[in-house]
Amino acid sequence: MNITDVRFAHRFDQVTGSAIRELLKVTAQPGMISFAGGSPSPDALPDDTVAELAEYVMRNDGKRLLQYGATEGYAPFVESLKSYVEDMLGIQVPAVLPVTGSTQAMDLLSKALIDPGDTVLVENPSFLGNLQCLKLYQANLIPVDSDDNGLLINDLEEKIRKYHPKMLYTIPTFQNPSGRTLSDERRKAIAALAEQYGIIVAEDDPYRDLRYEGEVLRSIKYYDQGGWVMYLGSFSKIISPGLRVGYIAGDASVIRKCTIGKQSTDVHTANLNQAIVDQYIRRGLLPDHIRRICRGYGAKMRQMLEYLERFPEGVRFTHPQGGLFIWVEMPEGTDTIQMLKKAVDRKVAYVPGTSFCADGGHLNTLRLNFSNSTPEQIETGMCVLNDIVTEEIM
Amino acid sequence: MNITDVRFAHRFDQVTGSAIRELLKVTAQPGMISFAGGSPSPDALPDDTVAELAEYVMRNDGKRLLQYGATEGYAPFVESLKSYVEDMLGIQVPAVLPVTGSTQAMDLLSKALIDPGDTVLVENPSFLGNLQCLKLYQANLIPVDSDDNGLLINDLEEKIRKYHPKMLYTIPTFQNPSGRTLSDERRKAIAALAEQYGIIVAEDDPYRDLRYEGEVLRSIKYYDQGGWVMYLGSFSKIISPGLRVGYIAGDASVIRKCTIGKQSTDVHTANLNQAIVDQYIRRGLLPDHIRRICRGYGAKMRQMLEYLERFPEGVRFTHPQGGLFIWVEMPEGTDTIQMLKKAVDRKVAYVPGTSFCADGGHLNTLRLNFSNSTPEQIETGMCVLNDIVTEEIM
Repeated sequence: MNITDVRFAHRFDQVTGSAIRELLKVTAQPGMISFAGGSPSPDALPDDTVAELAEYVMRNDGKRLLQYGATEGYAPFVESLKSYVEDMLGIQVPAVLPVTGSTQAMDLLSKALIDPGDTVLVENPSFLGNLQCLKLYQANLIPVDSDDNGLLINDLEEKIRKYHPKMLYTIPTFQNPSGRTLSDERRKAIAALAEQYGIIVAEDDPYRDLRYEGEVLRSIKYYDQGGWVMYLGSFSKIISPGLRVGYIAGDASVIRKCTIGKQSTDVHTANLNQAIVDQYIRRGLLPDHIRRICRGYGAKMRQMLEYLERFPEGVRFTHPQGGLFIWVEMPEGTDTIQMLKKAVDRKVAYVPGTSFCADGGHLNTLRLNFSNSTPEQIETGMCVLNDIVTEEIM
Repeated sequence: MNITDVRFAHRFDQVTGSAIRELLKVTAQPGMISFAGGSPSPDALPDDTVAELAEYVMRNDGKRLLQYGATEGYAPFVESLKSYVEDMLGIQVPAVLPVTGSTQAMDLLSKALIDPGDTVLVENPSFLGNLQCLKLYQANLIPVDSDDNGLLINDLEEKIRKYHPKMLYTIPTFQNPSGRTLSDERRKAIAALAEQYGIIVAEDDPYRDLRYEGEVLRSIKYYDQGGWVMYLGSFSKIISPGLRVGYIAGDASVIRKCTIGKQSTDVHTANLNQAIVDQYIRRGLLPDHIRRICRGYGAKMRQMLEYLERFPEGVRFTHPQGGLFIWVEMPEGTDTIQMLKKAVDRKVAYVPGTSFCADGGHLNTLRLNFSNSTPEQIETGMCVLNDIVTEEIM
C-alpha cells in the first residue's frame, strides 16, 4: 500500500491549519506592511538581557537545567511564578503549572476536560489558535454574543441553560481579535454563573499588562469562589514568544489532570526557558520593561486609530485601551477576503475577520495589529487601506 | 456547584500518571541509590558548552530567537537537522519536524492518526511514557511478543491480520525497558509488513548512538520503500533532556498533519533551544561528545552485568549492547512490587516491570538503569539487590 492511502484521525476532519500562520508566510515577503499576525515589536524583545540571563542560569545551575525536570516545573520558577501570579491577581491560587506557552495551557485544559461532542462556549470572534485547539478535541463550539463591554451575560446564561457546556473560553482583557475588554460587573457575573452551573471558565489573559489607557480591572479569577475559573497566563507578550513560557493557575485537581496530560505531551517545559523567566521575575525586571513597551505600543495604537477616524462613513472599529489589535467592521455586503487580495497586491496585509468566528460568516470584518509595524509603516499602510476601503464601499 | 464535582474527560479513565515519575519523587531522597529513572549521568551533561552556545546564539540572532517562530521549526536548524538525519540514516528523508522532545513526536503522531478504539501494536514490555500517551488517545493496545532479537515477526504478522492496527510502536535499538536490539533481518521484515498492510511504524530510536559493543545497524526507516515508517529521534540522551529538543522524520503528508496538530499544542518548539542544538550539530561537537559518554556508560553497563552474573540461579537478564537499561526476570511467582518496598527500605530503587507491560502481569520482572549512578553506587546497590533477591527466592 502507498502512504497516500493513510487514514488520518477524524479530529482533523474540520481542521486544515491556522489561516493566520499560512498568511504569515505570505507577509514575510520583502516590502510587505503586515497588520496581520500578533507578534511583538522587535524593539520590545530584550535580546541582550536574555543573552545575559541565559548564560547566568547555565553557569549557576547548568547541570540541573540540562537534566530531566519535573513535569510540575523547575522548582525555583514554580515558587517565583506563584508569588508573581498571586501578587498580580491579588488572591491566593491553589496551584500553578508552568507550560510551553499559554497555547499549551489551552491544550492541556481541553485534554483534561473535553470529550468529543462536549459543548464549549466561545466569544465571537475569538482567538483562532485556541478555536483550532478546541476543534481538534472535537468540541461543539457555541458562540456567545458580545458588545463593547465584552460577553453579554443574558446571552451567556441562555446558552448555558440550552447547551449545558463543559467550559467557557474567554479572553477578557483587550480581546484577540476584537480589542474589547470585559467590564468589571460582567467579570463578577461570569464567576457567579460558573459556580452556579458548574462550568470551567478558561480565562485567557495574555494581554493584561499591555494597558495604555484606563484603570486596571480585577480578573474573573479574583471573583471565583467555587474554584471553577482557570487562569491562563503568558510571558510571550511581555518578555518573548520565542521562549515559549506560559502558565495555568487555579484548582489543584484540575492542574493535576493537566500535569498528567503534560507528562505524555512534552514531559516538562524546557528548564533553561523556565530559569530565564524566573530570573526576569526575581530581578524585578518586568515592571520597567512593561512600562517601556506600553509607551511604544500605546503610541502606535493611537496612531492607527487616528487613521481609522479618516476612513469613509459606515466603517466602524473598536477603541481598545490596550493589547495588540483593533477590530474593524465594514458595511454589510463587503467581502474582506476579496479585499485582502487587493491589499496584498499593494503590499498591505490584515486578517479577514471570518477566520475568528466559530460560526463562520462575518465577511465584512477584519483584524488589524499595530504592535509589529513602525510608525512609518502604519502611516503608509493605513493610507493604502483607506484607498482600498473607499473604493470598495463607494 | 463545587469544583470537586468537575467531570474530567473519559480519556483519563484508565490513566493515573506515570509510575516512573511518581517513583522519581521518592528516589530524590538523600542517600537513595536509584536504578529507576532513565536520566543521563550528570557528567554527561555539557553545561559549559551549552552556556557558551546559549550566549552565542542570543548575541548572534537574538531578536529572531525571541520572536514567534514557524511551527515548521527554526530555519537554520531545520536545515542542519535534515542533513544530520540523512547522514545518520544513510537515506534521504522527505521532511523533518523539530519537536519539544521526542515525547511530543509520539503525541503528535498519535494526534494525527489515532481515533479512539484504533489498534496500536506495542512491544511487551515497552516505554511507559508512550504507552500512557497512546492510552490518552484511547488506543486499543495489543502487545506483540519479543525474544532476544526483538519483535517476533510471526506474532507481529498474526496480530496485524487479526487486529488491523493503525500503527506499530517500536523502540528497535537498546529498547526501553528491555535493552534488546531488533535484528537487521527483522528490521527489513517490519518495513515490508508495514507497506504490505498499510501500517504506520513509529520507530522510536533515542538510544541509537549509545552503542558500547557490536555493529551499528540500519534503521527500519532505511528499509522503508512505501513511506510508512516515521522516525522519532531525540537529543535528550546525547546532549540534554532538559532542553526538550527532538524530531520526527518521514513522509511529508504525515509530518504536515503533525505540524497542524503542533500549531495548537505549543505553536513551535522554543527557538533558543533549537538554535543551541543547531550549533551543536554545525560545530561538529556531537561525535566526540558521544564517544566520551559511551565510554562512561559502557563501563557502568559492564559493571552492572558483572554483579548480575553473581545473582542466584533462576534470575535471568538481558545483555544489551548499549542504551541505558537492563531487564531482569526473576523466577515465576516473585513479586517485584513487594520486593521494591524492601529495596527502598535499604535505599535502593528500580522500576517493577509490570509498569511497562500493556497487558499488565509480568510481576516477576524489573528494569535497572545504570547511567545515572556512580561505580560506587552500582557496587553498593547491586550487592543490596543481590541480598534481597537471594532472600526472596531461596
